[in-house]
Amino acid sequence: MMTTRRADDIVAAARARAAELGVAVNAAVLDGGGHLKTFCRMDGAVLGSIDVAIRKARTAVLFACRSEAVWEYCAPGAPAPALELSNGGLAPFAGGLPVLAPDGTLIGALGISGGTVDQDLDIAKAGLAACTF
Amino acid sequence: MMTTRRADDIVAAARARAAELGVAVNAAVLDGGGHLKTFCRMDGAVLGSIDVAIRKARTAVLFACRSEAVWEYCAPGAPAPALELSNGGLAPFAGGLPVLAPDGTLIGALGISGGTVDQDLDIAKAGLAACTF
Amino acid sequence: MMTTRRADDIVAAARARAAELGVAVNAAVLDGGGHLKTFCRMDGAVLGSIDVAIRKARTAVLFACRSEAVWEYCAPGAPAPALELSNGGLAPFAGGLPVLAPDGTLIGALGISGGTVDQDLDIAKAGLAACTF
Amino acid sequence: MMTTRRADDIVAAARARAAELGVAVNAAVLDGGGHLKTFCRMDGAVLGSIDVAIRKARTAVLFACRSEAVWEYCAPGAPAPALELSNGGLAPFAGGLPVLAPDGTLIGALGISGGTVDQDLDIAKAGLAACTF
Repeated sequence: MMTTRRADDIVAAARARAAELGVAVNAAVLDGGGHLKTFCRMDGAVLGSIDVAIRKARTAVLFACRSEAVWEYCAPGAPAPALELSNGGLAPFAGGLPVLAPDGTLIGALGISGGTVDQDLDIAKAGLAACTF
Repeated sequence: MMTTRRADDIVAAARARAAELGVAVNAAVLDGGGHLKTFCRMDGAVLGSIDVAIRKARTAVLFACRSEAVWEYCAPGAPAPALELSNGGLAPFAGGLPVLAPDGTLIGALGISGGTVDQDLDIAKAGLAACTF
Repeated sequence: MMTTRRADDIVAAARARAAELGVAVNAAVLDGGGHLKTFCRMDGAVLGSIDVAIRKARTAVLFACRSEAVWEYCAPGAPAPALELSNGGLAPFAGGLPVLAPDGTLIGALGISGGTVDQDLDIAKAGLAACTF
Repeated sequence: MMTTRRADDIVAAARARAAELGVAVNAAVLDGGGHLKTFCRMDGAVLGSIDVAIRKARTAVLFACRSEAVWEYCAPGAPAPALELSNGGLAPFAGGLPVLAPDGTLIGALGISGGTVDQDLDIAKAGLAACTF
């Protein structure tokens, strides 16, 4: 279950990693139903990345996978063109990670946006690593 | 300006007050343009109050007043019926407070939802009191 | 036809009247199809009144009458309850005026929001008076 | 801060340049939070470009860059496919310019639509050049 404590830990670790990298990001944590649990926009992050962070996390919850994995289904030539238009619009690029309980149950996701895609993924991994059970 | 530090302080104080009252709430802080800055859904808060907390804060930003003050304009017999339908839907009841800088500039708002309306307002006031300049 | 010249004249006159009254408003002019033609948010007008000004003008275009006249249909006890929910939400209170050509053709509307309802209507009338044919 | 005076100056200069080029455009100025400040649709501009002008300006505010720069992130092969679906839909092509204060603070944006993309950008630059501090 995505508790307040876990969400706090994830966001705190993500913020710490972003600060290390010298980048301002948005960090969003959703529960297993895709509903917002915790959010932080660091000073200096662009406004457009609020929605992107939440959307990456939502993409990860909806398909129970990393956000960029969805692109394998809807990229040019892939079998599900326009899948990215479903569910009110997906963000099929890196920075969204599902959060799984030790038994493999999906309990939520986090999404990071504000840096480069590589930075966002790095920060998201640091956030996820702080989630304990 | 609604900084991460101020938003963190507001949400932490609101959570502490909610815990004192034994109620689980959502706390949302927006900047002066109505964009999400910080958010927390405490364990046990109902899902429907996520949107309500954000909407109360947005109502307070949009009209630069406490969210319930908007009801004076759209209550039965008041001069602006259906005003609550504007701006994608307002939340004209207590729990949203504008955040003003010492010079009176509107720098954002917070919205609390999850308890009774009286509790939400109490918690919002505690959050606002923690915002320093 | 709602020309740029007419829309400019309407907004300029509305702004001048608002300045006389010492109130900051939003002024929106739409064409006969309800599409935005000219808009101005005066310094100090609250953000929430952007949408309200446009919505009043849209209400006036959609029903070819003053915005507050729509309330006669949807007020408690009137024959069309919830009419205000139609068309994406109406603003059935004063401040929206249709613009008619000399032959009675509806060519657009203006909407004013930011003052009291009485002020908004006063300013809208001043704007309309500046529309020449 | 995006004042009425600045927004008026921007739109007037954009209109003058559009007239020189013999093209009818929509000109939209937003504040730093993405809220509409001033708008003009010149006679003859197509209806569909109302939304495009506002959307270009919104894109520029949200990502604090020229609207077309967003395409570098979401073009085929770029790292953020479908980014253009975020934030209610972006307009990642030329004609939206951020407005920066002398200290580099983002205070708003303007968006031009109605001509060719090259014309729109030319007109937007003329508008921006008229913004004084």
